[in-house]
Amino acid sequence: MTEKIKVALLGAGNVGSQAARILVEDNATLAERIGAPVELIGIAVRDTQAARHWDADPALYTTDADALIDAADVVIELTGGIEPARTRILRALQAGKSVVSGNKALLAKHGVELQAAADASGAQLSYEAAVAGAIPILRPLRDSLAGDRVTRVLGIMNGTTNYILDQMDTTGASFADALKDAQDLGYAEADPTADVEGHDAASKAAIVASLAFHADFTIDDVHVEGITGVSAEDVAAAEADGYVIKLLAVCERDGEGVNIRVNPTLIPRSHPLAGVHGAFNAVFVQAENAGELMFYGPGAGGAPTASAVLGDFVSLARRLVLGGPGVPDTSYVQLQATGLGNIVSRYSVGLLVEDKLGVLSNLTRILTEHGISVESLRQSSPEDGTAMIRIVTHSAKDSDLRRAIAVIDGLDTVREITSVIRVENN
Amino acid sequence: MTEKIKVALLGAGNVGSQAARILVEDNATLAERIGAPVELIGIAVRDTQAARHWDADPALYTTDADALIDAADVVIELTGGIEPARTRILRALQAGKSVVSGNKALLAKHGVELQAAADASGAQLSYEAAVAGAIPILRPLRDSLAGDRVTRVLGIMNGTTNYILDQMDTTGASFADALKDAQDLGYAEADPTADVEGHDAASKAAIVASLAFHADFTIDDVHVEGITGVSAEDVAAAEADGYVIKLLAVCERDGEGVNIRVNPTLIPRSHPLAGVHGAFNAVFVQAENAGELMFYGPGAGGAPTASAVLGDFVSLARRLVLGGPGVPDTSYVQLQATGLGNIVSRYSVGLLVEDKLGVLSNLTRILTEHGISVESLRQSSPEDGTAMIRIVTHSAKDSDLRRAIAVIDGLDTVREITSVIRVENN
Repeated sequence: MTEKIKVALLGAGNVGSQAARILVEDNATLAERIGAPVELIGIAVRDTQAARHWDADPALYTTDADALIDAADVVIELTGGIEPARTRILRALQAGKSVVSGNKALLAKHGVELQAAADASGAQLSYEAAVAGAIPILRPLRDSLAGDRVTRVLGIMNGTTNYILDQMDTTGASFADALKDAQDLGYAEADPTADVEGHDAASKAAIVASLAFHADFTIDDVHVEGITGVSAEDVAAAEADGYVIKLLAVCERDGEGVNIRVNPTLIPRSHPLAGVHGAFNAVFVQAENAGELMFYGPGAGGAPTASAVLGDFVSLARRLVLGGPGVPDTSYVQLQATGLGNIVSRYSVGLLVEDKLGVLSNLTRILTEHGISVESLRQSSPEDGTAMIRIVTHSAKDSDLRRAIAVIDGLDTVREITSVIRVENN
Repeated sequence: MTEKIKVALLGAGNVGSQAARILVEDNATLAERIGAPVELIGIAVRDTQAARHWDADPALYTTDADALIDAADVVIELTGGIEPARTRILRALQAGKSVVSGNKALLAKHGVELQAAADASGAQLSYEAAVAGAIPILRPLRDSLAGDRVTRVLGIMNGTTNYILDQMDTTGASFADALKDAQDLGYAEADPTADVEGHDAASKAAIVASLAFHADFTIDDVHVEGITGVSAEDVAAAEADGYVIKLLAVCERDGEGVNIRVNPTLIPRSHPLAGVHGAFNAVFVQAENAGELMFYGPGAGGAPTASAVLGDFVSLARRLVLGGPGVPDTSYVQLQATGLGNIVSRYSVGLLVEDKLGVLSNLTRILTEHGISVESLRQSSPEDGTAMIRIVTHSAKDSDLRRAIAVIDGLDTVREITSVIRVENN
């Protein structure tokens, strides 16, 4: 066996604690697979006395992250947030130390800068844990599909929102009740904003799009819409038409560019993603030659995410032992992130209208004038002089649909546009 | 860009033709991703005049495989069969040329020899296409889960048999009718033996087990049972109990060893593998930390399998361009393949018996004497003095179950044991 590999761990939260546990408890197996002894030399934390999910030797905890990084061969960053994570990772990479990170927010914002620092010093940077927890998705996109051309990625990449939408679908619960249920079970945080507004999924979408299309995208390239506006009525209407509503991250070729969006989406119940229940994640990939692939598994959780972290660690440590340069992430090309205007899809539109003669023909006339044809239309009339209308359109350009909706919204007979949700075909 | 990478292709069948097409049509993209120009320098075939699925420049075809190998930097072997594929791959590896192969039969039989030849010369050997077509499964097992401990792999790894069983399940067809249907549609060959007897899946199981458990296994370590004995009645009885029958490759920890088997298996309809229809493949992986993962996609077909081949090619070509040694497949450990005797699972047993008083109590008494308890028992009585009995047992040792079945088979009142099928729990 060659020289020992010294590992610095930054962070001892849910994932960090599990990574520490595996580094200690499975040390012999890791060493065998890497071909060198491995030593966890320290764990950088803000408070060395805090309670942990798993307690390492107390002597390992330190508040001096910089000194720990300087003493290590490999740095595992599991603190989350932009700073001080960014500065610390740069410190490691610039010193030629390889880094494993699970920090999706940081990578979606500053991934280009971090990768450049790694390439400049010959260090390796891996972050499988940043997307979809334990599910291997970044390596398959980068390596296994390297000889193919990805055309579209559809991902359920946030377990909290999938749990909420699944509850709404199976029990008929409202968004508020399903959210409360998710919070009671620990699937959602007290402040659920990052999950339910789609920001968490948007970070992952930017990372996935970069690897899938071999180009640089950041979270600022992602169009985001959360699930707070999804009502029990939307879910029931989708079910009646054979669909289920999921918060999908969609990354797809759009002419010469790539469109990246996170939004509530209707998918047919026969679609493989429709069967992804609870807090599970799944990523559905379409490629020119491979066809349709799906990757499914736990999208979060300490041990599953730590599994992805340790997989990255073993892979890059093997390379350290063998010598020679790491394989840089990809040869990137220039690709523009596109706006939503040219995106063509079907839409499910919900409206609350006055229950009067001529309202329907007015609606369909306006849609037709904007080049939008109606695939199905259903109406239900409460006894209060109003009617709920649900229209599913044929494929239409987003910009045409938005213009038609603006006109419809101005009609005297329309009380409210209750929802506009994209429908993904297979 | 660095020097050109010269590629020799062996075989121009379904997959070979598609690999040639991609190497020619997507040449610029491949070169960009690898960081060096790529040239397909020749295609070794038995008959240079044969019709192809895709026709390359006629000047590329040659019958002199050895000369082609000697002139190449990388060899892609897509001929199938043991010889001459084995000798040719060894010739390439011994000369330090990296090899991509999709030859499952060869790798399941002589994988150890081929890997040793690669390691000896520092060449790379990749074979993602040998298992489950386009689905990236070998790289995730080898790299992404390298820091985890796989406990069990369940795979639907043969599209032909999945198509047949799916037809039987959805239409109630007999095995013979579903097989004929599969043959008419091109999913099954005129001689379907390798598929329906489980040999094809067994090759893949040996390869998957080797990577999942970081040990050497060959097809001789796999217990194989095909689907020719699965009747429409078996399928209907499974459905009545909430199960579906799949031909599963199962690789699991068995004490200090690993048990590898391919056999028809009942799985609950709620299991993710139950939703894998038609000729699709899927691999379900359980690991200590990652939990449950599933990989899903087309398990065969020219273009999907060629996608996996080209993914391997780009990955190893990147390494050639960068220099430095390739990462050997794993650090292997010694693990015994185990017999079936100690395997514990539930069983579904079908019997045709005389419709007489006391038959049932006799059966349950014999099972109890062998330490086997009954989970459910259903009986249907045709009007001819016989009865069909379907027993699902609680977990039992395979050896106990076999002994009980032998005793039952000797009873005067038992006309026939119609089926003994394992039930996999979640």
